[in-house]
Amino acid sequence: MSDLEILEEHRCFGGRVLICRHGSAATGTPMRFSLFLPEGEGPFPLLIWLSGLTCTEDNFTTKAGAYRKASELGLAIAAPDTSPRGEGVANDEAYDLGQGAGFYLDAREAPWAAHFKMESYITRDLQDVLSANFPLDMERRGISGHSMGGHGALTLALKHPDLFRSVSAFAPIVSPARCPWGEKAFSAYLGKDRAAWAAHDAALLMESGAARYAFDEILIDQGMADGFLDEQLKPELFEEACEKAGQRLILRRQEGYDHSYFFIQSFIEDHLEFHRVRLS
Amino acid sequence: MSDLEILEEHRCFGGRVLICRHGSAATGTPMRFSLFLPEGEGPFPLLIWLSGLTCTEDNFTTKAGAYRKASELGLAIAAPDTSPRGEGVANDEAYDLGQGAGFYLDAREAPWAAHFKMESYITRDLQDVLSANFPLDMERRGISGHSMGGHGALTLALKHPDLFRSVSAFAPIVSPARCPWGEKAFSAYLGKDRAAWAAHDAALLMESGAARYAFDEILIDQGMADGFLDEQLKPELFEEACEKAGQRLILRRQEGYDHSYFFIQSFIEDHLEFHRVRLS
Repeated sequence: MSDLEILEEHRCFGGRVLICRHGSAATGTPMRFSLFLPEGEGPFPLLIWLSGLTCTEDNFTTKAGAYRKASELGLAIAAPDTSPRGEGVANDEAYDLGQGAGFYLDAREAPWAAHFKMESYITRDLQDVLSANFPLDMERRGISGHSMGGHGALTLALKHPDLFRSVSAFAPIVSPARCPWGEKAFSAYLGKDRAAWAAHDAALLMESGAARYAFDEILIDQGMADGFLDEQLKPELFEEACEKAGQRLILRRQEGYDHSYFFIQSFIEDHLEFHRVRLS
Repeated sequence: MSDLEILEEHRCFGGRVLICRHGSAATGTPMRFSLFLPEGEGPFPLLIWLSGLTCTEDNFTTKAGAYRKASELGLAIAAPDTSPRGEGVANDEAYDLGQGAGFYLDAREAPWAAHFKMESYITRDLQDVLSANFPLDMERRGISGHSMGGHGALTLALKHPDLFRSVSAFAPIVSPARCPWGEKAFSAYLGKDRAAWAAHDAALLMESGAARYAFDEILIDQGMADGFLDEQLKPELFEEACEKAGQRLILRRQEGYDHSYFFIQSFIEDHLEFHRVRLS
């Protein structure tokens, strides 16, 4: 990808935070991501972070407090935007559909199918631009994310175990086929036929045996004061699926924590260490 | 202060982040601040953080990555808004005057004098609401801040050494009487007579012997890739003033770092430790 633009560069904990833009063939739009590169020559193991509804590449980058530990561990972190954007890209007034709500899948239905190809973007174009331009060891990649991005991390890891050696999530939407956020988004992007939904539902993928034996353990943190817990997130559905499938899961129910980045920053270092061990 | 409202509460690193609003007699407006309280009963030593131009109580709270170390040290941190706000409060279209640019002084000139009483707010009303409502040890207070807030931290510490036992700053405006930001703000808030400016200029206060022997050391971090370094910040003016006054100063020139919160987060833990030692 020769069209990479570095829009901002900031020194941070001895390394660098870059804000980047590049053209994506999958989405047919410019896409933005942030990248933290530790000090040194590399090549560095890489964690992909997927953010939640309404987020851009900025939220994790400024709010997660991840770079102190990433610097210490020598771990690079890329955090892409959550959807294609701009004029000519379909949108919806609601916060949970359209721009800022790409759900990390390739849409099939109009008007979304033209640009909303986030699964292809994350698994192909983003990987290509990172690999071509930065000192990253693409054999050592992990993936994590929050809420809609936790859904993205789990589903993309289960569908593409060749790409990722470790996976974790914060407050993920573990079964979008069985919650209002997911039903709305999947109806719009994939159509009414629920048979097509299972391939983008972490709990259903797990039950179907996807990526069996690919991940020794999966780590999930869930705040128990999260206002979305019972209606949207339902971690017990993934817990049951892992048990059926024989997948080891570390599901930590964190008392008193909510859905915010104050929750994420409290436990992000545990996740970075979880990934770093598996990316050695 | 019986009118304290807690607008948000988030668990964070075992403690709590509160977003609060209360009425200030000094500004005649509602004022907002954030407060991090560590886990436990307290009373906790307290660091006051003053933010820079354009900021609200939100910037430090979400971007500084300070609460992991504050939790470990058992240190509370209060981060107030940078000016009065709202309808009926004077403002200016520029980012460096009016709302978001209070400069931590009590304005004398119209139209600012009606509400822009940030020195009285920070040193009196904010302290009162904190003391009355939270388990804080008001005998153990420190102050820090960034840019305009670094100016605020240095000047308020030098003018009120009875309130603060420790002071540090990131990229402070050390001599507003000798830089464009300060000349503009002081002209508007204090009037054209520069004799009145010296009481709000950290370098001039230091040279005048203010707070002599009150602080064993002052810590300042300054990024050497900061775009405001030469025209606005001029740390050498404070360095010279400290040398003349016999004040020990730790001025760390950090190569490659800019004016952003990526710089602040890289060194905030050093500052928290600096304060905690002096607030024992």
